[in-house]
Amino acid sequence: MNTNSGKVTLLSAGPGELDLLTLRAAKALAAADVVLLDDLANPEIVSLAPQARVIRVGKRGGCRSTPQAFIERLMRRYAQKGLDVVRVKGGEALLFGRAGEELASLREAGIPVEIVNGISSGFAAAAGLGISLTHRRHCHGVTFVTAHKEDHGEPDWAALAATRTTLAIYMGMRRIESLAAALLASLPADTPAAVVQWAGSANERRLLTRLDRLAADATDEGFGSPAVILVGDAIGESVEAMWVQDAASHDESARARAA
Amino acid sequence: MNTNSGKVTLLSAGPGELDLLTLRAAKALAAADVVLLDDLANPEIVSLAPQARVIRVGKRGGCRSTPQAFIERLMRRYAQKGLDVVRVKGGEALLFGRAGEELASLREAGIPVEIVNGISSGFAAAAGLGISLTHRRHCHGVTFVTAHKEDHGEPDWAALAATRTTLAIYMGMRRIESLAAALLASLPADTPAAVVQWAGSANERRLLTRLDRLAADATDEGFGSPAVILVGDAIGESVEAMWVQDAASHDESARARAA
Repeated sequence: MNTNSGKVTLLSAGPGELDLLTLRAAKALAAADVVLLDDLANPEIVSLAPQARVIRVGKRGGCRSTPQAFIERLMRRYAQKGLDVVRVKGGEALLFGRAGEELASLREAGIPVEIVNGISSGFAAAAGLGISLTHRRHCHGVTFVTAHKEDHGEPDWAALAATRTTLAIYMGMRRIESLAAALLASLPADTPAAVVQWAGSANERRLLTRLDRLAADATDEGFGSPAVILVGDAIGESVEAMWVQDAASHDESARARAA
Repeated sequence: MNTNSGKVTLLSAGPGELDLLTLRAAKALAAADVVLLDDLANPEIVSLAPQARVIRVGKRGGCRSTPQAFIERLMRRYAQKGLDVVRVKGGEALLFGRAGEELASLREAGIPVEIVNGISSGFAAAAGLGISLTHRRHCHGVTFVTAHKEDHGEPDWAALAATRTTLAIYMGMRRIESLAAALLASLPADTPAAVVQWAGSANERRLLTRLDRLAADATDEGFGSPAVILVGDAIGESVEAMWVQDAASHDESARARAA
């Protein structure tokens, strides 16, 4: 282990709005020498890291074919120079998004790592809808799953439906039609379903519907990535328009106050 | 709807350490007139709400038989007086913990609600273990489930195991033996498993083991509630002792730096 090495902080940037960062995340950013910024994180986050050299990574990071290896090399290189490197990841770093590979790479190089948790977009989506993800009248849990095929194949939708947990589906918009069809084989047509695009950001958009109309409604209303798809009886507790959100960025806040 | 009513903020206190609160949570606490404090939240959180009248609620709240109805009545009463009420809930308010009932009660009374997300202990547990909950080599998701029988009966462990997602089991310590036995009927004996008690707090304790030894090891090592039980191949990525956590409160931090 390199005794005079720096360290890497895997930092969860949360769903978008900067005040959804933790106090610990803000402190880590303030002390950062280098910030590696994910495509999915709010770029305004760099305002919290005034001393840092900012490097934008991801698909637009200049190394199309091996972005992941490129990012890992950058993190190791800067930390081994003794710098305080903050790797900013959208949402919660430990949910999807390849933190596992990055941790293994840093571990192998003997570089100390700090992990700072954050808010995943599934929770922000539930807040926007004004619901608990696990209302005990309806279920005893929630499953976060990625529909992204490259991530370990297609999920077993029948097995997921059989758990009777609320499903929070990430990266599912490109195959919303096929996943909804697969779930319809196991769940009632009127199972409540929702799509929340840009959850927890100033651009948040919500669709509340039912499973058999999910794909058509999402298409009709022009919903796209990034979005979380929610399916399950707990979603049916949502009553839109009652909810106060951040006054600066959510129209419904003004409506609720005017009412 | 009451035009001059106050509002209620359902605020996620996170797993314990105060710097795991969001910036938005800190701001809401600073503006609070009344704070209703959960048993599971770190009591030091009241230092962030200097103007507020603090009321400790929960089992020790003085109304043993109907604590939930009592809490809901308090929230409504203070909000209807025009006050800014912050209901502090341990972990993430929208994961377990009866937010669903509280939201319904407030909705019925026409009281505006703001929801502030936070860090659930399952994510803090993963950070302590230094792992992604969804390493794509092992799984495509994670299921958060409560083992608490009063919450909608016993979960279907066979169905949960069949999803091949990482399982993050809350409120499971009292029946760790029976739930481990149930999971062993569906999962290999050497499936990696962990217990993290007081995850994300200064008293965090971790046990890393395998499914067939989970209950015995947890008992031998004196693990109890509150704790998160984690089961799944992704847990096997944990390599203890490499991890830097909050220097003030985690021994392993000092060890990592000294190494």
